[in-house]
Amino acid sequence: MATYIFGHKNPDTDSICSAIAFEHFKTEVGENVKAMRLGEVNKETNYALSYFDVQAPDFLEKVADETEVMLVDHNEFQQSVDNIEHAQILEVIDHHRIANFETSDPVYMRVEPVGCTATIIKDMYDEKNITIPKHIAGMLISAIVSDSLLFKSPTCTNRDIEAAKALAKIAEVDVDTYGLDMLKAGADVSDQPVSAWISGDAKEFMMHGSSVEIGQLNTVDPAEIYKSIDEIKEEIQIIIENKGLSLFLFVVTDILNNDSEVLAIGPAKDNVEAAFDVTLSSDDRAVLKGVVSRKKQVVPNLTRAFES
Amino acid sequence: MATYIFGHKNPDTDSICSAIAFEHFKTEVGENVKAMRLGEVNKETNYALSYFDVQAPDFLEKVADETEVMLVDHNEFQQSVDNIEHAQILEVIDHHRIANFETSDPVYMRVEPVGCTATIIKDMYDEKNITIPKHIAGMLISAIVSDSLLFKSPTCTNRDIEAAKALAKIAEVDVDTYGLDMLKAGADVSDQPVSAWISGDAKEFMMHGSSVEIGQLNTVDPAEIYKSIDEIKEEIQIIIENKGLSLFLFVVTDILNNDSEVLAIGPAKDNVEAAFDVTLSSDDRAVLKGVVSRKKQVVPNLTRAFES
Repeated sequence: MATYIFGHKNPDTDSICSAIAFEHFKTEVGENVKAMRLGEVNKETNYALSYFDVQAPDFLEKVADETEVMLVDHNEFQQSVDNIEHAQILEVIDHHRIANFETSDPVYMRVEPVGCTATIIKDMYDEKNITIPKHIAGMLISAIVSDSLLFKSPTCTNRDIEAAKALAKIAEVDVDTYGLDMLKAGADVSDQPVSAWISGDAKEFMMHGSSVEIGQLNTVDPAEIYKSIDEIKEEIQIIIENKGLSLFLFVVTDILNNDSEVLAIGPAKDNVEAAFDVTLSSDDRAVLKGVVSRKKQVVPNLTRAFES
Repeated sequence: MATYIFGHKNPDTDSICSAIAFEHFKTEVGENVKAMRLGEVNKETNYALSYFDVQAPDFLEKVADETEVMLVDHNEFQQSVDNIEHAQILEVIDHHRIANFETSDPVYMRVEPVGCTATIIKDMYDEKNITIPKHIAGMLISAIVSDSLLFKSPTCTNRDIEAAKALAKIAEVDVDTYGLDMLKAGADVSDQPVSAWISGDAKEFMMHGSSVEIGQLNTVDPAEIYKSIDEIKEEIQIIIENKGLSLFLFVVTDILNNDSEVLAIGPAKDNVEAAFDVTLSSDDRAVLKGVVSRKKQVVPNLTRAFES
C-alpha cells in the first residue's frame, strides 16, 4: 500500500501543495506514496490548483494502526490525522516548532526554520538534481506566497525568497501579480458562513497543559468581518465548551496593512494581554500592530505567557 | 556567549565525539559554539580521545534560562541537560526516536534513521565541501564504530559503513583493528564499581506514562558480570525507589557473540516477557538472542508492550 503524505487539518495552501509536491518528489526517487488532505480545500488553494490545473488530493479522515505516513507542514498530533498515535511515521518535513510529537522508532525528520515547507522541498529537488515540472513549481510557489503573505511575514527568510524567484521562472508566473491574485481569492470570505471564518484555518495547541485554539482569517477589511461579532462570539463559545479550551484566539489579519485584530474568548484570555502587552477592549478585541504570523509571533508569545 | 553543543547524559562515544566534531563544523561555517559534556567520559571514549590526541569537552551540569543550545545524539528532555525546558534549542542532530521533546519556536532538526549521529555530521561536511581534519575524522569514525558495534548492530546502515570507510582513510586507521581495540577498552569494566556498570550508560524513557530506565553494558563475558547479581539487584532497587521507576532493564551485551542477557526489575517487569517473547528466570534474567541495540531492538519492543 502507498505511504500517505499529508499536511495538517484545516489545510492551508502549504499543507495541500507541499503534499502534492512531495508526492511527486518521492515518486521520482522510486517510492510508493500518495498525497492526501485532512480537510476542505480553501479558496486560496483552489485558486492555485485551478491556475496550474492540478487535482486536489483525496480526503483522509483517519488512519488504521501501523499505516505508514509522512507528515508535511506539521508535527503536532492534535493537528494531524485521527489515530496518528498508532501510525508508523516514516518522515516529517516541516518548518514549525516541535510539540506533542513522538515516535517509537527512529524517523527521518527535516525541520528547518524557514517560512514554508515548500522551500525545504524545493531544496530537496535541487540536492537530488531532480527536475521540477511546471505544475509542481506552481504548487511550491503558491505555498511560499501563502505562508509568507507575499514575503511580508516575519517568518519569511532569504531562502524562501530565493526559492520563489527560481520557482517563478519554472512556473512561468510574475510572482507579485500571481501572488496578490491568489491571496485576494483567499481573502474573499463574503460567501462563507461565520463558522468557516473561525474554523477554516484553526489549529489547536497545548500550552503548559492548557488547550488553546487559534483561528486566523486573512482579509482586506477587518471591520467588515467584525460587523458579525455577536455571531462570531457565539460560535467560538460553542467550540470552547465542546473542546474544553482554555482560550480561543481569533486572529483577523489585514493582508494589505499587515496588522491583525484579535478576539480572545475563554477563561485564559488574560494571557493574551500579557503575551502582546495590550488591553482587550470591552468586547474582548485588540489590535496587534505588525502581527501577521501565527507561528512566529502569536504562538511563541502566547506560549510564554502560559508558562509564566 | 557561545552556543553550547552537547550529547546526552551518561555520554557514550557518539555523544562526546559528535559534539566535538559538530563544534568544529559549526566553527568552520562561522558560528560561535562550544562542545560540552553532560557526564563522565567512559573508557571507550577515552581510548578514542587519547588515540587522536583530543581534549574531552568541559562538563555542563545545568543551563540558565534562554541559553542557546544545540543537541546532538539525543532529543528526549529527560536525557538532556538540567533545565533544558527553558533553554533556546536552535538545532538538533540526532538518529533516535522523537519523544518528550518540544520547542516554543521553530527549530532546525536533522534526524535521520542511520546508525550514528556522526554519520549525519560527516554528510554535513561533505554537503558544504568542508575538509575534515584527521583528528575530527578520528572522532567521527570512533562514534560510528561504537554505535554500530563495528557494523554488527542492526542499527547500522550502508550510509554508516560508507562514512566509516571514507573516514578511516582520513583518520589513517585500519577500522577493524582500531575499532576492536577501542571496543575492548570500553568493555573492560573489571576496575569499575557495580554502580558504574548499571548507570554508566543508562537512559530514561517515558513509555505510555511509565518511567523506564535502561542501562546497557558491553562486555566480552556476561557470566563474569552476573557473578555480582546480588549487588546489581540491590543497586537497581535503590534507583527504582529513588526515581519511582516502573522498570529498570539492565542489558548486558556480549560484543563478541552479539547477544544480550538482561535483568528486569520493577513492578512492570512482565512487560519484558511480552516485549521479547521470553520467560524471565527465577532471578529475573533472560537471554535475548541477537539483541544488541537498545534503540532499535529494546526500546521499540518494550514501548509497544507498555502500550498494549
